[in-house]
Amino acid sequence: MKYLTVVRAAVGSSVVLFALSAFAADPLPSWNDTAPKQAIIEFVDKVTRQGSPDFVPAAERIATFDNDGTLWAEQPMYVQLAFAIDRARTLAASKPELMESPVIKAAATGDLRALAASGEHGLLELVATTHAGNTTDEFAQLVRDWSTTARHPRYARPYTELTYLPMRELLEYLRTNGFRTWIVSGGGIEFLRVLSEPLYGVPPEQVIGSSIRTQYELRDGTPVIARLPEIDFIDDKAGKPLAIQKFIGRRPILAVGNSDGDFEMLEWTTAASGPSLGVLVHHDDAGREYAYDRAASFGRLTRGLDEAQRRDWLVVGMHNDWNAVFAAPTAP
Amino acid sequence: MKYLTVVRAAVGSSVVLFALSAFAADPLPSWNDTAPKQAIIEFVDKVTRQGSPDFVPAAERIATFDNDGTLWAEQPMYVQLAFAIDRARTLAASKPELMESPVIKAAATGDLRALAASGEHGLLELVATTHAGNTTDEFAQLVRDWSTTARHPRYARPYTELTYLPMRELLEYLRTNGFRTWIVSGGGIEFLRVLSEPLYGVPPEQVIGSSIRTQYELRDGTPVIARLPEIDFIDDKAGKPLAIQKFIGRRPILAVGNSDGDFEMLEWTTAASGPSLGVLVHHDDAGREYAYDRAASFGRLTRGLDEAQRRDWLVVGMHNDWNAVFAAPTAP
Repeated sequence: MKYLTVVRAAVGSSVVLFALSAFAADPLPSWNDTAPKQAIIEFVDKVTRQGSPDFVPAAERIATFDNDGTLWAEQPMYVQLAFAIDRARTLAASKPELMESPVIKAAATGDLRALAASGEHGLLELVATTHAGNTTDEFAQLVRDWSTTARHPRYARPYTELTYLPMRELLEYLRTNGFRTWIVSGGGIEFLRVLSEPLYGVPPEQVIGSSIRTQYELRDGTPVIARLPEIDFIDDKAGKPLAIQKFIGRRPILAVGNSDGDFEMLEWTTAASGPSLGVLVHHDDAGREYAYDRAASFGRLTRGLDEAQRRDWLVVGMHNDWNAVFAAPTAP
Repeated sequence: MKYLTVVRAAVGSSVVLFALSAFAADPLPSWNDTAPKQAIIEFVDKVTRQGSPDFVPAAERIATFDNDGTLWAEQPMYVQLAFAIDRARTLAASKPELMESPVIKAAATGDLRALAASGEHGLLELVATTHAGNTTDEFAQLVRDWSTTARHPRYARPYTELTYLPMRELLEYLRTNGFRTWIVSGGGIEFLRVLSEPLYGVPPEQVIGSSIRTQYELRDGTPVIARLPEIDFIDDKAGKPLAIQKFIGRRPILAVGNSDGDFEMLEWTTAASGPSLGVLVHHDDAGREYAYDRAASFGRLTRGLDEAQRRDWLVVGMHNDWNAVFAAPTAP
């Protein structure tokens, strides 16, 4: 029998098909073979297979991902808050008068309770002091430098190593299937852009986030973009679909989040007339990562848990559905 | 002599090379072989040729184009203004009380002088009335419908046929060479996105423009993005580099404009430390298109003309540098 005939004969047998697929590389090796993995693969298959009634042209295969708690750890606090605190400490060391502000003092001395008590006003002051007063180029360099030295308090590893391996596999799997992957984060757009390409393979122009106001200035005849101590846009909750429409101008067909800040993004995505998929990561793995949802200070998930089932959103439980959370350390 | 040997021998001879290149398809056939065309081809060659000291990786080959007056005609008025006027007429026909507003009345009756006299306030009112009060999906449909029926007053052709053929060739030539082409327009982002892909091959996520505020709403349980009668951002002058940084997060290496509204975009682009090119289209062809610069109501060009030479920006004169302006009509 010629080779093609063998293949044709084999197609009829699901046993042989199974054996064949076992030889193909698993695109999601860190995912257990539980329902979420199967549902994701089925979804990708039905929107990419020529002739499928749910086929979606590649240009419209937009997938949007939240970052904090979806692509990397957000406990015990957002990574960017750790950056702001370290930056407050650095600034206060060279400008002691900054310690006259209770907010900056709380940050610089690591008094998280006092910092939290300062509320939204305090957080805005912290952002204004630690994220503004520089140019976009200078800020990117600050983030780059910080990210190479800062360590997560529990894992004692760089934050940049605490991305979720299953999610990096998912991003890559989607791109291999013609999707474009976007990050839609409540975090700062310019903070994330420094890291998105090396960590996730997502280029800066596919990052959406919160922003502060900027201003175009000439300094000694050279144009710079100055970062001002003023909030421009908060990319959270209903802000996410608005920002998706503004930046992408198309509705995603796949959205992945982990908190109620992602609710409207999933709602908007899955209200499309065509095929769509909403995915929520549920942090239920205190051993390998953290277990939190309804009572969390960072990444609270209440409404998403309550409504996922009736909205047909996938809930991915880290404990059962992932066989690995982080990649092994690259160096001892 | 074998074929490869012939080719190797020929490479030494510039005469033969010239003869060979004459056989290759000209990527810019609507451009005359004048200095701008040569400069553009030299620039693309030096940033794309492996081993060139000015080589730029494909991911960083960002080219930004203004739209009105750069990619399509902006006289006797911006295309989007023609849309707003037609829309005012339509709205006033079903809601006569709108005519109580002098601005809407001026627009609906085609009294451009009165409309211009209403100034910025009048223009904002016109935009609020004609561009808001609908959802993003509804607005896109309005633009789509209008664009198929509206005709340019001079050429009696659809506005969508009045794109500049040399510019469409340039967009395609750049993309063939690994560039990503973005539109950075003072016009409305949602207006332009409806047309950018069919007219220029530029997908919605590579369109930046002015915007009005939007709001996420549930209507009968279905989420919509409602367009509010309030300006969000004007993508003009210094707004252009700011929007480029916000949307793309990288500095372009090539920027093309035609008015002083594009000055800062070209300034920002050509202040890069690496190779860059700034291009200005000069409308000096009253016969085939229009001739205007320092005194124009739409697309005024003063500072760009004054400073192009010392800044090493290319000035493309439509009259001398283009052998065609528009494509021939597709139907009689």
